[in-house]
Amino acid sequence: MTSDALLTSPPTPVDTPQDRLRRAKDAARSVARLTSDEKRAVLHAIADALVARRAEIVEANGEDLVRGEHDGIGASLRDRLRLDDARIAGLADAVRQVAALPDPVGELVRGQRMYNGVMLEERRVPFGVVGAIYEARPNVTVDIAALALQSGNAVVLRGGSAARSSNTVLVSVMREALSAHGVPADAVQSVDAFGRDGARALMHGRGFVDVLVPRGSASLIETVVTESTVPVIETGAGNVHIVLDVSAPDDWARDIVVNAKVQRPSVCNAVETVLVVRAGAERLVGPVVAALQREGVTVHGDATVASLAADVVPATDEDWETEYLSLDIAMRVVDTLDDAISHIRRYSTGHTESIVTADVRNAERFLDEVDSAAVFANASTRFTDGSEFGFGAEVGISTQKLHARGPMGLPELTSTKWVGRGSGQVRR
Amino acid sequence: MTSDALLTSPPTPVDTPQDRLRRAKDAARSVARLTSDEKRAVLHAIADALVARRAEIVEANGEDLVRGEHDGIGASLRDRLRLDDARIAGLADAVRQVAALPDPVGELVRGQRMYNGVMLEERRVPFGVVGAIYEARPNVTVDIAALALQSGNAVVLRGGSAARSSNTVLVSVMREALSAHGVPADAVQSVDAFGRDGARALMHGRGFVDVLVPRGSASLIETVVTESTVPVIETGAGNVHIVLDVSAPDDWARDIVVNAKVQRPSVCNAVETVLVVRAGAERLVGPVVAALQREGVTVHGDATVASLAADVVPATDEDWETEYLSLDIAMRVVDTLDDAISHIRRYSTGHTESIVTADVRNAERFLDEVDSAAVFANASTRFTDGSEFGFGAEVGISTQKLHARGPMGLPELTSTKWVGRGSGQVRR
Repeated sequence: MTSDALLTSPPTPVDTPQDRLRRAKDAARSVARLTSDEKRAVLHAIADALVARRAEIVEANGEDLVRGEHDGIGASLRDRLRLDDARIAGLADAVRQVAALPDPVGELVRGQRMYNGVMLEERRVPFGVVGAIYEARPNVTVDIAALALQSGNAVVLRGGSAARSSNTVLVSVMREALSAHGVPADAVQSVDAFGRDGARALMHGRGFVDVLVPRGSASLIETVVTESTVPVIETGAGNVHIVLDVSAPDDWARDIVVNAKVQRPSVCNAVETVLVVRAGAERLVGPVVAALQREGVTVHGDATVASLAADVVPATDEDWETEYLSLDIAMRVVDTLDDAISHIRRYSTGHTESIVTADVRNAERFLDEVDSAAVFANASTRFTDGSEFGFGAEVGISTQKLHARGPMGLPELTSTKWVGRGSGQVRR
Repeated sequence: MTSDALLTSPPTPVDTPQDRLRRAKDAARSVARLTSDEKRAVLHAIADALVARRAEIVEANGEDLVRGEHDGIGASLRDRLRLDDARIAGLADAVRQVAALPDPVGELVRGQRMYNGVMLEERRVPFGVVGAIYEARPNVTVDIAALALQSGNAVVLRGGSAARSSNTVLVSVMREALSAHGVPADAVQSVDAFGRDGARALMHGRGFVDVLVPRGSASLIETVVTESTVPVIETGAGNVHIVLDVSAPDDWARDIVVNAKVQRPSVCNAVETVLVVRAGAERLVGPVVAALQREGVTVHGDATVASLAADVVPATDEDWETEYLSLDIAMRVVDTLDDAISHIRRYSTGHTESIVTADVRNAERFLDEVDSAAVFANASTRFTDGSEFGFGAEVGISTQKLHARGPMGLPELTSTKWVGRGSGQVRR
């Protein structure tokens, strides 16, 4: 039996995904009661164990990479899948950073003395069991588990099958560190071994899964949102816009567009479409396009853009809908700020939009009327990020309006409960 | 053509539930921008119009009642369906009370100056379109619409078909009041005329319905939660417990149990099961059962309860699961507080539980370990209520952990967005 077969051996017949959810729910009670000190100790033990067992992790990851090459997955996917000593050290550091974050559990959200003397308070409590469905990125396995534990939750993971050998070792490293600290190992579980049934159990785990976070492609998120009967927090997709107003200063327009596209094109807060208000187009389009092209960006423009700059690829309606996540950008000239806002209303995924303008009325109108998780005036869209906002770590960026909107930190992985202390009060 | 046929005439062929959702989404933009003063004026106009057109409302309601009697609906349902002048005056008063509540829209939730000088703030904004699916209670039509409007949202309603004539008039009264104040009438819409298709459109209205609130029976809520692909806030079901600890004072035990059962037995925060810790049973069970029986309550007890009190109906496992919503109560003697907490963990719907005890350790343990939206020590479970908590009005009581938990007021009908004001900042 090879190490791979051992690692991914099927579960015994009595072990079902539902059994694992049930055990996670039981374990959640223990995790919820851990003190901040205890959680910090567990997370540091996990970080240390990741480093100590890096050879084993790299070996398992090697099996995933070989299988991936055999299955013909692309180079960029293989790069995201790869773990080496340096990346494992980075993973361990990330866990230690989570351990250093303030513990959200127990925070007094609000409270009052009721009219009848009952002392009422709303306290932050863990959700219980957090589910996560994601793609073949083994770092997410450790990230989400650390965030869930620090916020007092148990976690059930379903990662992409291409990372299954890596994930099996990573989960076992975390479970052993939990056990060594007297915390039930079942606080961190994987349902990878059950394939699609594992994902289905998570999506239909009412009464066992308190919140489910999908992380990955738009289609993965769409599937999870559509199929789940448990509460889901939708994250991610970003068809992000920047509007260049008539009064946009030349340097701000150029620097913000270039930064938002080029600084890290593959992430959800990178800009995808630039809308230029017509009266400013002649002044702005040429220099902005040239600055983008100097950084290797392909500009997909409408006819007006093409008439004002060289080497512009003709844009179609499809370009307005596309989240390129690459060194491509769409650019359109619109008649008015109203038209820009209408374009955004039609095509935006509600993640982040920014306006560059010197006109305070237009800035405020844009900030007020554009209905996205984050709206900026005169700043790069790349700032929509948990670390940039000072949250220390990020669970994801919520593009829904329920529960959390924008970058989610640890408090977004908790709920609250009302606690009332009386002395015999009854209702009249 | 009778007046009934006029009121419930089928929609014209070009009008689909999806069309109405689309128009609600457009109207939502106008509602979101109303000032507090404007919203107050609209709600007062709605209240005045309800009173002015009460004859018309009572007439339509009469049609529902006649149809209901013909269809054989029960007396208590007919009572909840009935509108008379006094009840309409009450409805109008409720709308005026909502108008007097603080406007949640625009509230600064938190904010900071980012390390690079960008001024960042998280502001409360309306959801957009709130959907509601509920049963044949015409008061809910007006309640939910008022709450949605005051929190800056458009609303799409799907009420029980037994109330369709009443709802048609109520919705038209509200729409005319909106129009008269320059607000798009489509901010308040009903999809009742489309029957099941209307409910389905709401549940599958991704991109158009920002949050869906089911109000009614457990089975209605279950259907909505299971079938919806839009975010749902689950409200309501309350299998509520009171634990009488060994040290429970006689008078608190008796008064709290009787109040929690008898003061209003038909509501979700009324107690359904009392758990008595064995060492206190001999002292507590007899007097508590007698006090309940004096108020006309039927006690369903286990063998120990039956041995300590007269006229106890034998309880089965089914009683522990039952939300009676009537003058019935289940009572069980458990060995320890641990057993009481285990019973609650197994049978509770996570709404409200209370302990009666003089022992601070047991009180704190109960408050800490019982995972319900509201937990009390030495107070009636009937206090889990928006008005009692000082929210002024109640959208419902959330029994889920995402977004809102416990009584929901106006702020729970809003989301937030991040607003950043910069001066050319880009990410390094």
